[in-house]
Amino acid sequence: MREAMKEAELAAQYGEVPIGAVIVRDGEIIARGHNMREIWKDPTAHAELIAIREAARVLGGWRLTDCTLYVTLEPCPMCAGSIILSRVDHVVIGAMDAKGGAVGSVTNIVETDLFNHRPEVTTGVLAEECGIMLKEFFRGLRNKRK
Amino acid sequence: MREAMKEAELAAQYGEVPIGAVIVRDGEIIARGHNMREIWKDPTAHAELIAIREAARVLGGWRLTDCTLYVTLEPCPMCAGSIILSRVDHVVIGAMDAKGGAVGSVTNIVETDLFNHRPEVTTGVLAEECGIMLKEFFRGLRNKRK
Repeated sequence: MREAMKEAELAAQYGEVPIGAVIVRDGEIIARGHNMREIWKDPTAHAELIAIREAARVLGGWRLTDCTLYVTLEPCPMCAGSIILSRVDHVVIGAMDAKGGAVGSVTNIVETDLFNHRPEVTTGVLAEECGIMLKEFFRGLRNKRK
Repeated sequence: MREAMKEAELAAQYGEVPIGAVIVRDGEIIARGHNMREIWKDPTAHAELIAIREAARVLGGWRLTDCTLYVTLEPCPMCAGSIILSRVDHVVIGAMDAKGGAVGSVTNIVETDLFNHRPEVTTGVLAEECGIMLKEFFRGLRNKRK
């Protein structure tokens, strides 16, 4: 999760909301991603989606079996859906997202048998630190606007 | 929807599951996409996501306000999520997807006030024809395997 937080810090440096993700397989980080929505002008450029696409490229196939995704903020519906589609084994989440989270907060499309894949989920890993990064980022934005 | 079906036909020609999408703004098609999961080896390469990313590129921003997305099959959770994130105004759906649809079939993350954007939804447009394309594709696959 520390590595996912480094990705989030990179996002913040670009002025993007600090959310980061890494994908681990056999103890090695095979892909990394951080939110790039504003700079790429791409509504789908979330940390998880970028990392999942990168991991698929590295592995040479769309199935991310035996992979663990670490992400600093609870995935939104799009990212939760991409986790199901890519067959990620395990999702490790930092802070929860009460406004948009799709792994237990607003809805839960991952911890359900409704779809054809159900990854293991671990929440609350470095949650406070992951949440503080976001709070500080938004506080900084508000101060800039004053 | 006929144009989305043309995209689906292109997917089938590549051996991909025939699902297609187009995005229309001011009466003009500004983006097109078809499923490319197998060839691109990308679990996120669904018709809708590809069309949404292309439309954002064309419009020069991530907000697809005043856009209508036509798609031949009910979006999955990932694509439904990307529709919310990109602020698409209106989603027009061909066939429904009883196994994986996230706009009413398995779950509904679009027609809900849980998230910060709720697009208008129209279903059943050329549904039979869109569904037949899929059925014929899978029948062809089964025959190949015999």
